[in-house]
Amino acid sequence: MLTFIGLGLYDKNDISEKGLNCIRNADYVYLECYTSRLMGSSREDLEQYYGKPVHPLYREDVEQHPDAILEQSGNGNVAFLCAGDPMVSTTHADLRIRAAERGIKTGIVHASSISSAVCGLTGLQNYRFGKSCSVPFPQKNWSPTTAIDVILQNRALRLHTLVYLDIQDDRYMTVPEAVSLLESMAEEKELTIPLYVGIARAGSDEPVVRAGPADTITATDFGPPLHILVVPGGLHDMEREYLERFGGL
Amino acid sequence: MLTFIGLGLYDKNDISEKGLNCIRNADYVYLECYTSRLMGSSREDLEQYYGKPVHPLYREDVEQHPDAILEQSGNGNVAFLCAGDPMVSTTHADLRIRAAERGIKTGIVHASSISSAVCGLTGLQNYRFGKSCSVPFPQKNWSPTTAIDVILQNRALRLHTLVYLDIQDDRYMTVPEAVSLLESMAEEKELTIPLYVGIARAGSDEPVVRAGPADTITATDFGPPLHILVVPGGLHDMEREYLERFGGL
Repeated sequence: MLTFIGLGLYDKNDISEKGLNCIRNADYVYLECYTSRLMGSSREDLEQYYGKPVHPLYREDVEQHPDAILEQSGNGNVAFLCAGDPMVSTTHADLRIRAAERGIKTGIVHASSISSAVCGLTGLQNYRFGKSCSVPFPQKNWSPTTAIDVILQNRALRLHTLVYLDIQDDRYMTVPEAVSLLESMAEEKELTIPLYVGIARAGSDEPVVRAGPADTITATDFGPPLHILVVPGGLHDMEREYLERFGGL
Repeated sequence: MLTFIGLGLYDKNDISEKGLNCIRNADYVYLECYTSRLMGSSREDLEQYYGKPVHPLYREDVEQHPDAILEQSGNGNVAFLCAGDPMVSTTHADLRIRAAERGIKTGIVHASSISSAVCGLTGLQNYRFGKSCSVPFPQKNWSPTTAIDVILQNRALRLHTLVYLDIQDDRYMTVPEAVSLLESMAEEKELTIPLYVGIARAGSDEPVVRAGPADTITATDFGPPLHILVVPGGLHDMEREYLERFGGL
């Protein structure tokens, strides 16, 4: 059996009891290391916590050479760990399909995800979020502006936008970097974004939430990664009051 | 201190290690019983599992008479438990604001939420979801059609819609009931919804996921609650393949 187990938001203690039991019964434990990161615990921390080896998996292991994992899943219990809630990434979906094609039983153990955690951290209401988007690091001859289009479309419908920030190797985009990039995109379209809400280290004991206009946010030190951003589509009274209390608005 | 602790999707084992540690250190434990339900474990199951009393909280306790909870939070550690991820409901946000007004420290321990779990269960990609909506039980002289408007708006943008189903006392709307209601609304607008994806008991060992047109879905027995529904805004290849494998499409 192949079980996809979410580790949750921040460190080794964010896994569910159900997930931990599943790891205890696993013959092989893999940690997916390329779509997200559990910032508060290293792979070695996890090995010590579970009392068994945790093998790292990189993109080529899963997308090019999944045979080893699939073979083990056919013969025993394999735990496939990833930060957040599993399957938000297409690469996990693809592996689950391949397993099913071979007649291997699969399962999912869910965990906390930034997509719902932002609601609690910011007070921005779940049902007021539209489509999400991401801001990639600009590269030579490639500076996509999809993010600002999604934000503007959502704002026209008075919806909030969850903006995922790029991770490349050991480089994590910060909230101030993302806001600067979005401000340039908005300027080109002669538009203004009045309010941003930056969040750092969701799920940790010391998450940072800071709401304000671009100049306030770009001047804020959010500390270590991971960072994420919300662009509100206007605020209801309760949302404003919450951000005043817990987001320094 | 007042800590909002998510219990996750289905039963007592869906809580995180972090949340469980927090309950172990709590002087008072409350279970919020009016915005959602942990179907796989009763309050008595939780009491036995934690080895301490778990006091039920109803809407009037939180919204009309929060003084008792706030006073205890000022003098000791209070754990406020709720199914899913905390704070998705405005009533939790309001309580956190009231606590902060009194200078009481607050915190959130996140957990799995249906809003991200649907992605794993259905293979429908997170970034393709638009605004969510809910279908209430129709009442005398009150049959709101907001849900169909949200679905149509999302479909026009090729986005999926997560449709929350009503809970009233011990009455849980089923997927077939919701689809019938949406079909009537669609018919009035002379529109057709080609595909629904119904989900039951997310987070349990035996979740049901079934994709198909209205007549297939209304004829499907999804079993006990909780149920939830997704109306896709068209399918990408990988999404279709996933639903064929895991949703009987």
